[in-house]
Amino acid sequence: MTAPAGTTGTTVTGGIATARGFRASGISAGIKANKNPDLALIVSETPATAVAVFTISKAQAAPVLVSKEHLAKSGGVVRAVVVNSGCANACTGEAGMSDARAMAAETARLVGCPPEQVLVASTGVIGVNLPMSKLTTGIPQAFAALASDQGPQAARAIMTTDPFPKEASATVNIGGKTVTIGGMAKGSGMIEPMMATMLGFVTTDAAVAQPMLQRALVEVVNDTFNAITVDGECSTNDTVMLLANGQSGATVTDAEYAAFVGGLRTVCLELALGIVRGGEGATKLVTVTVSGAASQADARKTAKAIANSLLVKTAIHGGDPNWGRLIAVAGRAGVAFELQRATVTIGSIVLFDNGRPYDDRAPEAAEYLQGKEVAVGVNLGAGSESSTVWTCDLSAEYVKINAEYRT
Amino acid sequence: MTAPAGTTGTTVTGGIATARGFRASGISAGIKANKNPDLALIVSETPATAVAVFTISKAQAAPVLVSKEHLAKSGGVVRAVVVNSGCANACTGEAGMSDARAMAAETARLVGCPPEQVLVASTGVIGVNLPMSKLTTGIPQAFAALASDQGPQAARAIMTTDPFPKEASATVNIGGKTVTIGGMAKGSGMIEPMMATMLGFVTTDAAVAQPMLQRALVEVVNDTFNAITVDGECSTNDTVMLLANGQSGATVTDAEYAAFVGGLRTVCLELALGIVRGGEGATKLVTVTVSGAASQADARKTAKAIANSLLVKTAIHGGDPNWGRLIAVAGRAGVAFELQRATVTIGSIVLFDNGRPYDDRAPEAAEYLQGKEVAVGVNLGAGSESSTVWTCDLSAEYVKINAEYRT
Repeated sequence: MTAPAGTTGTTVTGGIATARGFRASGISAGIKANKNPDLALIVSETPATAVAVFTISKAQAAPVLVSKEHLAKSGGVVRAVVVNSGCANACTGEAGMSDARAMAAETARLVGCPPEQVLVASTGVIGVNLPMSKLTTGIPQAFAALASDQGPQAARAIMTTDPFPKEASATVNIGGKTVTIGGMAKGSGMIEPMMATMLGFVTTDAAVAQPMLQRALVEVVNDTFNAITVDGECSTNDTVMLLANGQSGATVTDAEYAAFVGGLRTVCLELALGIVRGGEGATKLVTVTVSGAASQADARKTAKAIANSLLVKTAIHGGDPNWGRLIAVAGRAGVAFELQRATVTIGSIVLFDNGRPYDDRAPEAAEYLQGKEVAVGVNLGAGSESSTVWTCDLSAEYVKINAEYRT
Repeated sequence: MTAPAGTTGTTVTGGIATARGFRASGISAGIKANKNPDLALIVSETPATAVAVFTISKAQAAPVLVSKEHLAKSGGVVRAVVVNSGCANACTGEAGMSDARAMAAETARLVGCPPEQVLVASTGVIGVNLPMSKLTTGIPQAFAALASDQGPQAARAIMTTDPFPKEASATVNIGGKTVTIGGMAKGSGMIEPMMATMLGFVTTDAAVAQPMLQRALVEVVNDTFNAITVDGECSTNDTVMLLANGQSGATVTDAEYAAFVGGLRTVCLELALGIVRGGEGATKLVTVTVSGAASQADARKTAKAIANSLLVKTAIHGGDPNWGRLIAVAGRAGVAFELQRATVTIGSIVLFDNGRPYDDRAPEAAEYLQGKEVAVGVNLGAGSESSTVWTCDLSAEYVKINAEYRT
C-alpha cells in the first residue's frame, strides 16, 4: 500500500501510551469466561483536551451516553479512559447507566480527579449487565499496572473476536518540536456473541484547542474509521476518542493544523485498515476507489455500495475479475452514472471502458486478484469527484463464524 | 403462511398461459452451453393492454430500453413477449440494442404484428453479445411450440441458476365473470455467471384500461416483487410485465379494482416468495415485519435493512434467536426508534420488550427457528405504521456458489 493522500508524519512503532505523559494497562478482570485480558486503562499524567465521535445508532449503549455526558460536564478535560471487553453494556436500561457511571467513578477515585474527567467504553455481548464486582476488583489492578510500555497489553485487552491487536503511532514536526500521535483500535465484524463494535483510542502529546481537536478528529475519522466496512453494520457502542495533553510542549496552531491532521490520519488509517485486515473470515484487504462522480457524496455512496455488495465481496474472494458486478452496483447506487463513459479497473487493468468490455484481460486480472491486498476502481463518467473506502472479502468462514453461535 | 392482507381470489394451478387467449412456449435455442431451455415466448391471440415496471439501475440493459421504447410507440398495445436466458444483453452497446430490436422484429413477423407490439426481456451473463443466429433459428421453433398448456415449459426456459421454476395463478370474480390471472418469474440471487436478474410476467383475460392496469401493477409490485430481497442487489435487467387481453369478457371498473388488485397480489406474491425460497444457498424463507414506525417509509426502510443484514441472515441460518442484532440494525437504520419502547419478536415469542430482554425464552425461540419458514418482528416504538418484506437466510453455500465462478 502506498500512503494515501493527506497522510503525513513518520510512522513509528508504538501505540496508545507512546505519546509523552500517557500510561496504559491491560489486565484480565474475569469478565470474559476464557480469562483473556478484558480491562484497559488509559491515563494522562496531566489533564488532556478530549474529543470523541460516537455511533449514530439510536440504540446507544450506556458507556456511549455516559461518555457524552462526561465530555459535556468536564468541558472536554479528561484524565482517563476505562474500557472493558466481553460485555457491551448495551440494552441494559438504568442499571447499565449506573454501572457505566460506577466504572468512571472508581477510575476517578484512583486517578484523583472528578468522575466526569473519566470516559468509558465497552464492547462485547448486548443485553447483559456488567459483572460489577469483577470491575471494582479489576480497576485497581489495572491502575496498579499502568506504565508507558503497557500499550500492547491495553490493545489486547480491548479485543473481542479480533484475530490480532491493532496499534499505530506516528511523529509529526510541529513548530520545530516532535509531536507523537499513537493509538489502538478493535473491531472484527461480528463480535462475540452479539454485535460488532469498533473502538478507537488515540493520544497525542501536542497541545490542541478543543474546537480544533474536534475538527481534526471528525475530518480524519471520515476518511479512515468511517471509510471502512466489514459487513455494513454500525454498532450500539462504536466510539473513537482522542486525547491531547500538550506534554511535548508543542501547540498546534492554524499553520500546523494540516501537518497535525496528516499525522492523525496516518495513525487512524493504519488502525482502521487493521480492523479490515482482521475482519471475520477476511482473506483480502480490498481498496475500492470511485472516481468520475458528480459529487463527493455520490463517490462515497457508490464506494460504500460496492464495498458492501455481496456480489463484489464474493467475486473478489473467489479471485473472479467480475467487472459486470461492479458496473451493476454502480448502476443501482442511486447516483449520477453514465454507462457509456464509465470505466472499471481491477488493479491497473482496465476491464470496461467507454461501453466496451475487454474480456481478453480477464486472466491477467484474475492473477492479480490472487494477492492479499487488491484494489478495484469504478469511474462513473459523471464528474470529477472521488472517494476511497476499504473492505474485506466475504468468505464461507464468515458465515460459519456468525451462524454457529447459539444462545 | 397465512394469506397476507390485500390478497384475494382463489389460487389455482396454472401459470403464464392459463388466462384465456394466451399461449406460451419454452425451448432450447442453444444459448446456454448446457442445452437447458433458454427461449420463451408469450403470445396473446388478440392485442392486449400491456404495462411494465423496470429496474431503476442506471446501467439498463438493451432489452429494457427496447421494451420501454416499444411500450411508448405501441401505446401499450402488445401481442407478444420474447424472453431469453443465458445472456443478459447488458453492457453490450449499440450492437445489443439492434440485437434486442431484431428479437422483437423476428417475433413480430411470425405473430403478424408491428415490431413495437413485441416486448423483450433477457437474463444471464452481462457484457456478452447475444448469439443472434441461435435466436433467429430458435424464435420460429418457439413460435411453432406455442400452446395454452406450455406455460411450465416457458417458466423453465427463463431460469438461470433458479433451483425450480416459479408459476402462480388465481381466479377472481369480476362483475359475475371469472377472470384468470397467471404468471411466471425467475430469479435466485446471483445468476450465472455475472448478475442476478429478476423477471416476472403476468397475463390476465380481464379487460383493464391502461392507466388502471399501470396503477394496479405499481401498487402490487411494491408489496411483492419489490418487497423481497436475497442479496440487496438490483440488476441491469429487472422487469415485470403485465398483459391484459380482455378475453374473459369482464372489464375491471373502479368498483372491481380492489378485487382485481387482490388477485394480482395473490399471483405476484406467490411468484415473489418463490424467488426468495429459491434464493442461492437459501434454506429458510424469512418474513420480516417492522411495526410501530413513524411512517410507511421508515417501516419499509427498517424492514429492508433487517432483511439485508448479514448479521441477521447468518443468525437465522444458524438458528440463533439473536434479538440484539435486530435491535442493532433497527437502531442504525436511520429512522425514528425508541429503544425503551421497542419490542423484538421471533415467531410469536417476545424476546425484548420495554427496554428489557427475556433471555429465558431464547431456547423456545431457537427451537422455532429450526423451521423452514420463520418470521421476525421489530416494533420501533415510534408510531403506528408497518411494513413486511421477505428474505432468505445467508449460508456458506451462497458464498461458495458466488465465489467459485471463474471467467
